[in-house]
Amino acid sequence: MAANTRRIEIGDVVIGGGNPVAVQSMANKKTDDIKATVEQIRNLEEAGCELVRVAVPGREAVEALPKIKKEISIPLIADIHFHWEYAVGAIEAGVDKIRINPGNIGSENLVAKIIEKAKDFGTAIRIGVNSGSLHPKYSKEEDAPAALVKSCLEYVRFCEAMDFHNVVLSVKSSSVVDSIKAYRMLAEQTDYPLHLGITESGSLMSGTVKSAVGLGVLLADGVGDTIRVSLSADPVHEVQVAYQILQSLGLRFYGPEIISCPTCGRCDIDMIPVVEEIEKRLMSVKTPLKVAIMGCIVNGPGEAKGADIGIAGGKSEGILFKGGKAIRKVPAKDMVGELMGEIEKLIEDVKEKESQ
Amino acid sequence: MAANTRRIEIGDVVIGGGNPVAVQSMANKKTDDIKATVEQIRNLEEAGCELVRVAVPGREAVEALPKIKKEISIPLIADIHFHWEYAVGAIEAGVDKIRINPGNIGSENLVAKIIEKAKDFGTAIRIGVNSGSLHPKYSKEEDAPAALVKSCLEYVRFCEAMDFHNVVLSVKSSSVVDSIKAYRMLAEQTDYPLHLGITESGSLMSGTVKSAVGLGVLLADGVGDTIRVSLSADPVHEVQVAYQILQSLGLRFYGPEIISCPTCGRCDIDMIPVVEEIEKRLMSVKTPLKVAIMGCIVNGPGEAKGADIGIAGGKSEGILFKGGKAIRKVPAKDMVGELMGEIEKLIEDVKEKESQ
Repeated sequence: MAANTRRIEIGDVVIGGGNPVAVQSMANKKTDDIKATVEQIRNLEEAGCELVRVAVPGREAVEALPKIKKEISIPLIADIHFHWEYAVGAIEAGVDKIRINPGNIGSENLVAKIIEKAKDFGTAIRIGVNSGSLHPKYSKEEDAPAALVKSCLEYVRFCEAMDFHNVVLSVKSSSVVDSIKAYRMLAEQTDYPLHLGITESGSLMSGTVKSAVGLGVLLADGVGDTIRVSLSADPVHEVQVAYQILQSLGLRFYGPEIISCPTCGRCDIDMIPVVEEIEKRLMSVKTPLKVAIMGCIVNGPGEAKGADIGIAGGKSEGILFKGGKAIRKVPAKDMVGELMGEIEKLIEDVKEKESQ
Repeated sequence: MAANTRRIEIGDVVIGGGNPVAVQSMANKKTDDIKATVEQIRNLEEAGCELVRVAVPGREAVEALPKIKKEISIPLIADIHFHWEYAVGAIEAGVDKIRINPGNIGSENLVAKIIEKAKDFGTAIRIGVNSGSLHPKYSKEEDAPAALVKSCLEYVRFCEAMDFHNVVLSVKSSSVVDSIKAYRMLAEQTDYPLHLGITESGSLMSGTVKSAVGLGVLLADGVGDTIRVSLSADPVHEVQVAYQILQSLGLRFYGPEIISCPTCGRCDIDMIPVVEEIEKRLMSVKTPLKVAIMGCIVNGPGEAKGADIGIAGGKSEGILFKGGKAIRKVPAKDMVGELMGEIEKLIEDVKEKESQ
């Protein structure tokens, strides 16, 4: 996406310059609890997380960084506020990127020390301006998105004056509307890759909706090179939701897509448990498949035909569809088993083809 | 929204012409089980549903319609496929709107009978074309969104030729990308109000993401006069998610907004249960409030200041904020109670002001 942004390397992940939108998340264990942090990051990796950030609020966290990095296989990003010396320490510790909000680091002189060090080590910096922690100079601006963008671009110019261009930008707000406005404005004025996120977006459900709307609107316009969904929940959910957003827009593929009807008074089968069961069984499948689970004969056969594999449920039996054709009838009680059997066969076929 | 669309009355709810985007859902009990259907619709009403649809797959369902209508207080929409006589029966039974996909009703002559009856009774018709049930004439078109729009507009012209303009349109697809394209195309070519939805969008989580992305992209552009989130889940969730989408874009207000951080290694309190508890306690509150629950001192005080009421949690104590000012410190264990106490006071203040 956003083929006109610059290409920035963060460890072995490249963002911007037309590369796939990268999915990131943030560990929420105490960073100096190395065991817990590493375990969480490994869970995130398994869920498909491509870049991971940890908070670095103290010296112990700085010291934990090289030990964490050794134990994980995705690029590590250090999140630093207030303390320039932790930023310098994190870069020396070998992290792949740091995230700072220069507004809370202190004088330009201190920010310059960080940039100098990042230049020496080839470390990328995200300039992450947030509505909740704007530089006092801008915090009185009435137009919040404009204030975020102005503040961010001022730091960009500061980096450029030091001939430092290894930069990723973010202008997050807890307001979806303000975030959309700010990122759109920023995308017009810069070609650095953009890290998208809606900050402090809330619980699993409301945070998912806010992130899907805000990030969805921007990504549909081609804005955004890496995304982080923020949820007050287990960060593994952040990764899952991020991929669902990207997959819905055809930007990344993550796992089988289930096309299932919302059920209505026409529905002849008890759909919801069937969908839940199939979804659960498909959780670990990474083969691109479209699976239709339909409860009646109105949209059922049509949608099931469009899918790789599908079932249209009837009163006592369902019709299995494969590759657009009805293949056989199955009794209602065997639907989940029969559908899963066909899905497994299909996955085997795909694997066989790939191995040839 | 979409101030340039026509104004259509559905019972006492007006959509289009700049009216607020209306939230609708669909009952999934058997429509001829009047007791179950009415009970479900009342739950939907309580959740804020403004228009409700029921499936009418048979004569018994047609006969149930007047009885259901008598027991509920929001406009009733009958969803009819294949059978023109059920559509005519539903209109005679006094429903406020019917939804048909003319492509599966049969000859133009039969569709004309429905339109004639709707004209007589002043009943609105939604022409709901679906990717899963396109007219055979269009089902071979390679460009799926264009096929949906062409098919829909052909039916519009048919209505107009009969001087019938009491029309709402939808062009749903299970593909978010195709839905966005189709609705954008349709919005350019017609001024009838648009009913937005992503069809067969899947389970609670994946369906929420697909709907939030698809509907969010369109609503952010000003497209859409009424929305239905389709989920393979209890329809009450459809209503909640619909309002969360609209609220995130500032289009409707539904309930308090919780600004809560995703927690990270800086977090000094056990945030997730606090957010869940506060969210649960706020479920029934309909007063516009922004509540911040923040786990540290980085974004905490900033975001808490922007909220009506908030807490920034620290190691052993939190700081309560109200109207932008820190009001007092509270011990960590009392945070939920103290925050809820302040929220309740604030709600009382709002109510008192409103009653003056």
